Amino acid sequence: MPLRPLVNRLDLCSINTATLGHRLPIQKTLDLIARAGFGAVAPWRRDMEGQDLNAVRRQLCDSGLKVNAYCRSTYLTARDSKGFKAALLDNCAAIAEASELQAECFVMVVGGVPEGSRDIAGARAQVAEGISMLRDQARSYGVPLALEPLHPMYAADRSCLSTLEQALDLCEQIEPGGFQSLGVAIDAYHCWWDPRLRQQIQRAGRQRRILGLHVSDWLVPTRDMLLDRGMMGDGVIDLRGIRRSAEAAGYRGHVEVEIFSRDHWWTCDEAQVLDTCAQRLQDVC
Amino acid sequence: MPLRPLVNRLDLCSINTATLGHRLPIQKTLDLIARAGFGAVAPWRRDMEGQDLNAVRRQLCDSGLKVNAYCRSTYLTARDSKGFKAALLDNCAAIAEASELQAECFVMVVGGVPEGSRDIAGARAQVAEGISMLRDQARSYGVPLALEPLHPMYAADRSCLSTLEQALDLCEQIEPGGFQSLGVAIDAYHCWWDPRLRQQIQRAGRQRRILGLHVSDWLVPTRDMLLDRGMMGDGVIDLRGIRRSAEAAGYRGHVEVEIFSRDHWWTCDEAQVLDTCAQRLQDVC
Repeated sequence: MPLRPLVNRLDLCSINTATLGHRLPIQKTLDLIARAGFGAVAPWRRDMEGQDLNAVRRQLCDSGLKVNAYCRSTYLTARDSKGFKAALLDNCAAIAEASELQAECFVMVVGGVPEGSRDIAGARAQVAEGISMLRDQARSYGVPLALEPLHPMYAADRSCLSTLEQALDLCEQIEPGGFQSLGVAIDAYHCWWDPRLRQQIQRAGRQRRILGLHVSDWLVPTRDMLLDRGMMGDGVIDLRGIRRSAEAAGYRGHVEVEIFSRDHWWTCDEAQVLDTCAQRLQDVC
Repeated sequence: MPLRPLVNRLDLCSINTATLGHRLPIQKTLDLIARAGFGAVAPWRRDMEGQDLNAVRRQLCDSGLKVNAYCRSTYLTARDSKGFKAALLDNCAAIAEASELQAECFVMVVGGVPEGSRDIAGARAQVAEGISMLRDQARSYGVPLALEPLHPMYAADRSCLSTLEQALDLCEQIEPGGFQSLGVAIDAYHCWWDPRLRQQIQRAGRQRRILGLHVSDWLVPTRDMLLDRGMMGDGVIDLRGIRRSAEAAGYRGHVEVEIFSRDHWWTCDEAQVLDTCAQRLQDVC
């Protein structure tokens, strides 16, 4: 399948609300994103705190915005079974919220190595157990789970799921036979360096498991491990190449912009950030 | 093969001179490392600037210190063929120095994506070509090349060689049939997160390619992407587990401490740092 042109097709694009720095109330954020012409939004749970989800849902309908994903899980890895159970419960509630918002998937960031532990294999086993249990909730609510491998620099404190291959291994282990309710979110920032990326994107496509494609850029130098992502085109990632691979593998979902940028983009006017996103999506993605 | 006890066996351990922050002249550094009882040292080229290598070699002999590795290559990846050729020449000179110091291997850090490029695959091809050419120099000087995959957070600016698997693929591509003069340095800091680590250590062992084992620790939080490594035992890495894998795969070389720590260990007295290294090697590695 040929690469979809994004020029004049912002309806194929989505804005993750983190890109705007969570500075505005969700109503205003949705309004800006819709007015800028984007087809979808990926809101965070923090945006929904204290909100009437039904009212948010109505605003989404009225504005024509889809919710391509709901962000994101509470970390599954925990020091003890009490913490693990609490994380499961909280994620069950989040999946219900995702359903209420008619989100196309719920993004899972699984957590790192629990405090005081050096057992990354044990953390990974805990993740497998947790995903397996949450899958039942996901099926009954009709909300697929998108496992998002994070860059290995977050393996200690955010995600012991570090590569696309590992995420797909987990999907197959828990849900053999191709996509039913477990898939992956491919974030270029997390995966761009991976020598097995192209091969694993193909594998993900064959299993119909690509539930999301996130773009931003890797800056040189990167001044903060969490909050210094770049705008597409400002770094070293071959974003078009990665999108080409995903679309060749059958991906037809939204291209989602997710930029954490405390010192630059989060200091800019939100409408201007959206304008830049729109331009760069069309020019370099 | 059982894990070698390190208690009272500092002769099996090495200090990479970067651990001491390159604050002292090499003569004093070698003296401190030998007096602390370590069996080997891994010096950097910068330590040798302006030095008479023969005199350094004599001091090493007199003190009984081996040189388990010489650090490290000039980045191979370059914007153009002129830069590439200059890097090759400089590395040829470094291999000759390594030979003069009777280093057991020369450590290769290959470079990231050249400035202005987004072509990581192209950078990797350049690395393969460069290693292939340097292997001739390595053979004629009798100095094995230890390819060191760096953590993926350095893929853009320091090393597009990011995993042990990728390093071994490169060794096999250039030098099929097991170790002759190409091997790998396994640095726990760079590789600890990798889901394929245990499997790839076994593979490296079968090919007799493990030329080095580096230890330090991954701190949570990590405050600087380059210069905030932890002392063994202060972070999340299962160092003994990784050493057990390497030794089960046949590794019998030195356990080398390499800690970049601008704000902590590089501010401490060198002899005290060496004492702590000695203690932690015996206690947690």
